[in-house]
Amino acid sequence: MKLEDLAGRCGEWLRGSGPESDIVISSRIRLARNLADFPFIRQCDDKDRGAIERTLCDAVHDEKRLADVTYVDVNDLPSVDRQFLVERQLISRELADAHGPRGVAINEGEKFSLMINEEDHLRIQVMNSGLDLKSTWEDINRIDDLIEEHVTYAFHDDLGYLTACPTNVGTGMRVSVMLHLPALVITRQIEKVFRSLQKINLAVRGLYGEGSQAMGDFYQISNQITLGRSEDELITQVAEVIPAMIDYERKAREFLIKESQTDLHDKISRDYGTLCSAQKISSEETMMLLSSVRMGVNLGLIKDIEIPVINQLFIHTQPAHLQKLRGTELDTANRNKERALYLQQHLKRETDGEAEHN
Amino acid sequence: MKLEDLAGRCGEWLRGSGPESDIVISSRIRLARNLADFPFIRQCDDKDRGAIERTLCDAVHDEKRLADVTYVDVNDLPSVDRQFLVERQLISRELADAHGPRGVAINEGEKFSLMINEEDHLRIQVMNSGLDLKSTWEDINRIDDLIEEHVTYAFHDDLGYLTACPTNVGTGMRVSVMLHLPALVITRQIEKVFRSLQKINLAVRGLYGEGSQAMGDFYQISNQITLGRSEDELITQVAEVIPAMIDYERKAREFLIKESQTDLHDKISRDYGTLCSAQKISSEETMMLLSSVRMGVNLGLIKDIEIPVINQLFIHTQPAHLQKLRGTELDTANRNKERALYLQQHLKRETDGEAEHN
Repeated sequence: MKLEDLAGRCGEWLRGSGPESDIVISSRIRLARNLADFPFIRQCDDKDRGAIERTLCDAVHDEKRLADVTYVDVNDLPSVDRQFLVERQLISRELADAHGPRGVAINEGEKFSLMINEEDHLRIQVMNSGLDLKSTWEDINRIDDLIEEHVTYAFHDDLGYLTACPTNVGTGMRVSVMLHLPALVITRQIEKVFRSLQKINLAVRGLYGEGSQAMGDFYQISNQITLGRSEDELITQVAEVIPAMIDYERKAREFLIKESQTDLHDKISRDYGTLCSAQKISSEETMMLLSSVRMGVNLGLIKDIEIPVINQLFIHTQPAHLQKLRGTELDTANRNKERALYLQQHLKRETDGEAEHN
Repeated sequence: MKLEDLAGRCGEWLRGSGPESDIVISSRIRLARNLADFPFIRQCDDKDRGAIERTLCDAVHDEKRLADVTYVDVNDLPSVDRQFLVERQLISRELADAHGPRGVAINEGEKFSLMINEEDHLRIQVMNSGLDLKSTWEDINRIDDLIEEHVTYAFHDDLGYLTACPTNVGTGMRVSVMLHLPALVITRQIEKVFRSLQKINLAVRGLYGEGSQAMGDFYQISNQITLGRSEDELITQVAEVIPAMIDYERKAREFLIKESQTDLHDKISRDYGTLCSAQKISSEETMMLLSSVRMGVNLGLIKDIEIPVINQLFIHTQPAHLQKLRGTELDTANRNKERALYLQQHLKRETDGEAEHN
């Protein structure tokens, strides 16, 4: 598998299927693991890091039940390719920006990835489309067990899994659900909702994790605490609030439809028109307009486009993706033109001739 | 001919043909005439006005060379129909708003109209597409002569034609050329240009004559003075400045293309997208966006629409036209929806699938 092959494709988690997928984009779990035989990354020199990389690569390679996995040597990659993997949510910005031997093993459908030498020796991540923490947990638990058959994890009987950062000690688990909440943003309820989530120790982040802005009205809700709780408890804690979030968003959408259907339809339709017509467009504006159109499709106000296409456009219109798809480096001005062209090509309006009196 | 028949059609002057029709919409001349046997309108009671109307209608009816003319009794018309005739430029707002016997004779192609009992007993108007004052003058001169074979005009050997308002005495002639000047507006040169026109006694008005705002970047340039000059001199005075105006506008367009082609193309294309996508839209916004798109078509930046279609949309999206086309009265909110629907139906993007790398 080459990165170029990934570019035109779409990860499993963008399929727009799975429960509640009008609002829940994806369910993700990651586990932080370290090898007992090596110091934590911050204490490692490049020789250690190389040895860790080899040990983990061998483990993955030797494990026949992980046969569809490709290893990408991130240390070898040009900056645009590292950015590309970040945009696809296959690696973290931290791994992209780090130095020395490091990489990521990615499975064919991009359902899981194994980051080597990020903050911890190993970070396992599984992502599924829609709200499906149960299978996500089953998947990641299986992968974790498979790898553990080949290596010895740093584990303490009282503390649990040991990790580089104390906030991850215990389960090493972060459970996140990515939600699309445009109506809560429009009705200005989002801040209030987030304040109440923080009170129960849940974190809210943007599309690209810690410190990233909530572009495109995407919000990741995840656990803050990993210590002193079982995996099931952590999953339950996150899983429990999601139905309420979905309900808030649905109610906000119903309110908008009831109070101002014409205004809403007009705004969304104009946003769609702009996406189809712009000759240059920034990433930020694209995310904002796609978010509006995504809600429009879910509300039945926009009929001629499918949710997976929009989900994919959120990722494919990011800077590194545009450059991979075009096969050349592009500066900001040219990316803005290329992005507009890409949107035009993928948002053909097929029902244009069907406007009718009703 | 019924008004309903006119609604879906397009007047000759909107054909978008004729010299310089990328910038010059139409050439118009009107003559103010009064019957020698009656007092001026302001001194008339309804009986007098009725007699004037009959005299002039008979003159038109008896003149076999004006066979394709239909008389519309404006006094009988509901408000929306009077507004409809104003929007089509067939009658003035003054005639629409006046009281008592009055009307307009319109020829089949809407090339000329004869208003009866406006400010003067008779106002003859001829409009041609593009810059063509010569044929416009020949046409109106012929019509004026034909009518004069049947009636006696109020004429004074020293002063010329006598008119209700002293500003029209002499030739009773107003020569106007309607220009589309979006680039002079964008580059903020329009005020300067107009100040110099005023210095040489030319008036600048919007699409709907005196007091109307310059909606859609349309400007009518016309003579202020009619007394002490011959018809030829008045025509020449207006005709002489038009090539300079055209030249200024062309230079401003070239400047915009040279300095900021991408920005301009992006703006115009987004404006087109909005026109095709809005679910409700005001008349003002429509005019503004159509103006942008009209320039885009002339500059080759928008390829899938013809100038006559745009010219027509400027008129057909006006409030009374929408109501005539829809066949029912509509309040502002419903007109805004109907206008959006009408625009969608008439602005089908046929090249949507053709976006290509270049």
